[in-house]
Amino acid sequence: MQFHFDGFQVGDPDLASPSAKGIAREMDDARLPAYTDVLIVGCGPAGLTLAAQLSAFPDIDTCIVDQRPGPLELGQADGIACRTMEMFNAFGFAEQVLREAYWVNETTFWRPSDDAGKGIVRGGWVKDTEPGLSEFPHVILNQARVHGFYLEIMRKSPNRLAPFYAWRLAGLSISRNAGDAYPVEATFEKVGANSIETCVVKARYAVGCDGARSEVRRSLGLALQGEAANQAWGVMDVLAVTDFPDLRKKCLIRSADGGSIVLIPREGGYLSRIYVELDKLESYERASQRNITLEKIIEAAQATFAPYAFDVKDVAWWSVYEIGQRLCPRFDDVPPEAAGTQPPRVFIAGDACHTHSPKAGQGMNVSMQDAFNLGWKLAAVLRGQSDEAILSTYSAERHAIAKELIDFDREWAAMLSAPLKATPEAAEGDVTPEEIKEYFVRQGRYTAGTATTYSPSLFTGDGAHQDLAKGFVVGTRLHSAPVVRLADARPMHIGHTVTADGRWRILAFADRSDPCDPASALWDLCDYLDKDPASPVNRFTSPDSDRDSVIDVRVVFQQDHPSVPLERTHSFLMPARGKFAVQDREKIFCPAGDGQEDIFDMRGIDRDRGCLVIVRPDQYVAEILPLGAHEELAAFFARFLVDRT
Amino acid sequence: MQFHFDGFQVGDPDLASPSAKGIAREMDDARLPAYTDVLIVGCGPAGLTLAAQLSAFPDIDTCIVDQRPGPLELGQADGIACRTMEMFNAFGFAEQVLREAYWVNETTFWRPSDDAGKGIVRGGWVKDTEPGLSEFPHVILNQARVHGFYLEIMRKSPNRLAPFYAWRLAGLSISRNAGDAYPVEATFEKVGANSIETCVVKARYAVGCDGARSEVRRSLGLALQGEAANQAWGVMDVLAVTDFPDLRKKCLIRSADGGSIVLIPREGGYLSRIYVELDKLESYERASQRNITLEKIIEAAQATFAPYAFDVKDVAWWSVYEIGQRLCPRFDDVPPEAAGTQPPRVFIAGDACHTHSPKAGQGMNVSMQDAFNLGWKLAAVLRGQSDEAILSTYSAERHAIAKELIDFDREWAAMLSAPLKATPEAAEGDVTPEEIKEYFVRQGRYTAGTATTYSPSLFTGDGAHQDLAKGFVVGTRLHSAPVVRLADARPMHIGHTVTADGRWRILAFADRSDPCDPASALWDLCDYLDKDPASPVNRFTSPDSDRDSVIDVRVVFQQDHPSVPLERTHSFLMPARGKFAVQDREKIFCPAGDGQEDIFDMRGIDRDRGCLVIVRPDQYVAEILPLGAHEELAAFFARFLVDRT
Ligand SMILES: Cc1cc2nc3c(=O)[nH]c(=O)nc-3n(C[C@H](O)[C@H](O)[C@H](O)COP(=O)(O)OP(=O)(O)OC[C@H]3O[C@@H](n4cnc5c(N)ncnc54)[C@H](O)[C@@H]3O)c2cc1C
Ligand SMILES: Cc1cc2nc3c(=O)[nH]c(=O)nc-3n(C[C@H](O)[C@H](O)[C@H](O)COP(=O)(O)OP(=O)(O)OC[C@H]3O[C@@H](n4cnc5c(N)ncnc54)[C@H](O)[C@@H]3O)c2cc1C
Repeated sequence: MQFHFDGFQVGDPDLASPSAKGIAREMDDARLPAYTDVLIVGCGPAGLTLAAQLSAFPDIDTCIVDQRPGPLELGQADGIACRTMEMFNAFGFAEQVLREAYWVNETTFWRPSDDAGKGIVRGGWVKDTEPGLSEFPHVILNQARVHGFYLEIMRKSPNRLAPFYAWRLAGLSISRNAGDAYPVEATFEKVGANSIETCVVKARYAVGCDGARSEVRRSLGLALQGEAANQAWGVMDVLAVTDFPDLRKKCLIRSADGGSIVLIPREGGYLSRIYVELDKLESYERASQRNITLEKIIEAAQATFAPYAFDVKDVAWWSVYEIGQRLCPRFDDVPPEAAGTQPPRVFIAGDACHTHSPKAGQGMNVSMQDAFNLGWKLAAVLRGQSDEAILSTYSAERHAIAKELIDFDREWAAMLSAPLKATPEAAEGDVTPEEIKEYFVRQGRYTAGTATTYSPSLFTGDGAHQDLAKGFVVGTRLHSAPVVRLADARPMHIGHTVTADGRWRILAFADRSDPCDPASALWDLCDYLDKDPASPVNRFTSPDSDRDSVIDVRVVFQQDHPSVPLERTHSFLMPARGKFAVQDREKIFCPAGDGQEDIFDMRGIDRDRGCLVIVRPDQYVAEILPLGAHEELAAFFARFLVDRT
Repeated sequence: MQFHFDGFQVGDPDLASPSAKGIAREMDDARLPAYTDVLIVGCGPAGLTLAAQLSAFPDIDTCIVDQRPGPLELGQADGIACRTMEMFNAFGFAEQVLREAYWVNETTFWRPSDDAGKGIVRGGWVKDTEPGLSEFPHVILNQARVHGFYLEIMRKSPNRLAPFYAWRLAGLSISRNAGDAYPVEATFEKVGANSIETCVVKARYAVGCDGARSEVRRSLGLALQGEAANQAWGVMDVLAVTDFPDLRKKCLIRSADGGSIVLIPREGGYLSRIYVELDKLESYERASQRNITLEKIIEAAQATFAPYAFDVKDVAWWSVYEIGQRLCPRFDDVPPEAAGTQPPRVFIAGDACHTHSPKAGQGMNVSMQDAFNLGWKLAAVLRGQSDEAILSTYSAERHAIAKELIDFDREWAAMLSAPLKATPEAAEGDVTPEEIKEYFVRQGRYTAGTATTYSPSLFTGDGAHQDLAKGFVVGTRLHSAPVVRLADARPMHIGHTVTADGRWRILAFADRSDPCDPASALWDLCDYLDKDPASPVNRFTSPDSDRDSVIDVRVVFQQDHPSVPLERTHSFLMPARGKFAVQDREKIFCPAGDGQEDIFDMRGIDRDRGCLVIVRPDQYVAEILPLGAHEELAAFFARFLVDRT
């Protein structure tokens, strides 16, 4: 964390000093604005991730609205994948989540006892997450708390962003008049008002984060497509007294009579979330039509847990859920025939674009990743760093990911609901407990959220130089590794330098030679970035901003940190910051040392040649280049950054 | 963290539901109360640690008062020793401090160049903290932020404790009338009021945390004793632009002309704290009489930093500080002649009892440890768990520690101010840079706060069985080590089970045998604790409280966690909690596994015999006993716990 660079600030360093807008907001937040840069409809995980991201930029005016009377208080999703924790870390609240959340360390599998009528027995267990997959564990925390962390970021941001509650989007239209700066017009109705009260907000961009029944999606003439739900599940958060030994482990349970439970321990040491398989539905049916009661869910759970007693003492929340995997054909307002000629103005994200079963715990995670993908792009356009063309990458990138998710979820949900067969020879479509376990392990990276791979595009290179850093796969999220910071010998993670501030990163991994030698490739790179007017740092940063405000360059040396004299490193690596031009000394790193594995080895970095890793603002590896590929580096950024010189 | 056991609570789990007192406080906190259980004078680190500790108990009414108009905003101390981080962890805010603070990883030593007139050169460096000394690093964070974390704990506590500001203690008296439930009478004057406004608060106990010029101490007729200050130091928090390479490391700098600097990098990446040696003072002189200006401090710093430029761009805070090591002969109101017959009613803590130079960074740390020592004792008495006799251990224990601190500080400060000699043969009393470095390393445990050892007393055993666990030294703080929690396979630290909740702990380390075997010593212990009416758990816990509310028993097995069937462990290890009697499954631990060192090896625990480690509420090891020493265990607790059966 960096702060105090413009002078000492009293109090919480996360609390920014308010902008003029922020001061105004603190005094009056009751009325929807007539105009805004970005209108966000919906305060679920997608909407709040987007709002928190945009709140980092005081020059962007954001308005976020929800029909609810106030913040979500309980229920809904609770699984937080490793990849999501990495993103939370970029937003600065991973530590708090780690402290509060349940950590999913192991998953156990329960199957019918071989003694018929004896109930279930433990069939095996696996580590929930493959070691080394991420520096963060897979955790469980109530969705409402996740919302709370985002709301706090917004509240502490310069503009003191806060949602407008109890307004329902009634309709949305887009003007195709090219000269219209605020082409999106949204009409809201006050919820719970005696008389009809409406309000119109005009926006440069609007994002529908308004869930599975999205009005924004409807207004774009789009619909979710896919299979109807045919399986009802009950879900409940309970306090139970039980002799079931694995209550505090994630469990997949199948009983002899076909009962199926997914048990997810919850934060705080006592609460459990339990998904219970209920009735098969006819294709014309909705689960809500069956009038399934809490008592019925508890009974079904008890039957499956036998021979263990399961005495439910308190129910915090419960719901009936139907499985349906559905996907919207595109995630913005631009029809295929206009692609490339018309920039998108309206987007949809999260459940508005895709719905799936809760069983793989993906809904909240993928929704937030949608918004994280979109946020920095909108910011780059609104702040004049990139032109509007980049916005169409959102739908392209995220639709492909959602498609994969839906396919995975369909398979996984079917597997959890399929009749259990005792032997591998049984009917096709039936599964053995062993198959469930194997599939679970195979798909571990997928559920951890680390399997996402963006295809080559404007932002994603072709990976021609992938061999220079085999462990930083182009198109995937930057897989962090430990390093030590040269200036203060602090052990840390290289990935944690990538915070949610909209900046691009160049991580330069030096070759073997002395990086303080003016004849070295690293020195040469610094000279180029520093002095050449054509360098991306010089071309794309406006002269009145800090030099690292668009592209943040960090270097990793191969030498142990005590052997590198900071005073001999290139001056480009200590850029001036803020009004006092104090030096930022946090750009240079060395391998972790102290017997820890070396980052060059962990990520397969070519020690003879070194390399450049270009990292997107949302933590994905955009491209790998040779250390000396100065022109290619400039050309890569020229694809999407606007000249500021 | 445990929560939700009495049902789901919306929002921040650290925010307790308010007690009746808390609700009243939320509505009106403007007036000092006429009566209170504990009156705390002073909102420095000592007062706030004590208030935060007492705020854990809704049945205790605390009143904390300061003459300042509001919370401290900047300046004063900033060093947070490893031991203090362990305590912060018990209070639940270590993660936040780790995130915000500067980490002191290495200290470098600078000395005059051998080329006369060439200024300073780097003489060497050391790791600031010996590896393995604590699971926490030594960190630096503004004292005002530390206050802020405590204030937040208080604000979120059931009673919603908040300080009364702008009231100055004018006088305090103690009634010796035995029947007087509120024998302490304190008179406060409103600060800044136009007319004289006074207010009287009567208290069961009062604690003077009112700093070096303590009015509470004066009212007890006590005074600080020791040497007068004879060395002035300037201290400033600055933003500087400099080519001095070690700006982000802790540095001890001595220049040829006698200049001396202690440089402490500060949180946020840019700010530096600089202590500059200034004039020697005559014995009759105070530093304030010299009219030392900021300009003079900066000039002196620049002279010492030469040949490096040191351009001060902004000064956040500065002060002139004089070194004086002084100590109060006792820390409570009981004169030596009344010891043992008269229970103490008034205490002093922190700078009110001892003052020292800021150089070893001990002032804030030791003050907080004073309060942590006192807090649980007051709580135990007020809550009827122990009788008043225990209160006299506070002065006895902490006075001995303060005495050691003063002696250490005198030596260290003298060393930093002594003339620098070039060779070991020079005059006595002069020091070589090498000697400073050696002394620094030797004293590392001391400055880390981990060297504190309480002598045998009511609470501290004689260590006759120390050989059963050589690494848990009786009288020292519990040196944590990694384990894995059986129920959820969570990797964690055993020491982190000791939170600031006033409970005693028994950590039972099992012997080699199967701990689920009813013939094992561990099973036998559980049987005894569970069923024997004479067991300390049964004798000292009131029947209407949770069974672990006075003594919290946790066990560590030798077996790897996958090999231990939770369902076969003793039922005593899963006690019921709260109104639903849900089971606490977080009492059983196994060695960390995954290639990590084994806690039995790390702490030298006898694998053939196992042992019992009794841990005080302030995290100190009270005694080590054999696993089967049931009577001794009961007898130990009977020394200070009151029978509740
Ligand atoms: C009742 C329920 C139970 C769930 N249970 C689980 C579960 O057990 N496990 C699991 O993994 N996932 C569960 N989910 C799914 C998970 O919560 C979602 O995947 C996740 O919240 C998606 O995030 P989102 O931001 O896209 O949409 P949502 O979280 O659905 O947020 C959409 C928001 O938009 C608002 N909104 C909608 N329409 C309008 C409008 N016209 N005007 C203004 N505001 C509007 C809504 O009030 C809502 O706050 C559940 C979802 C629901 C609704
Ligand atoms: C100006 C200053 C600079 C310091 N600089 C450093 C430094 O550079 N490095 C370092 O390590 N340590 C420094 N210290 C010391 C460090 O701050 C103390 O060791 C630490 O704060 C001791 O904590 P405490 O709670 O015992 O007392 P304090 O922090 O001194 O708190 C005492 C509190 O009691 C209040 N009080 C006093 N009298 C009354 C009264 N009659 N009625 C009501 N309230 C009263 C005061 O307003 C104050 O808030 C400095 C202290 C001061 C005062």
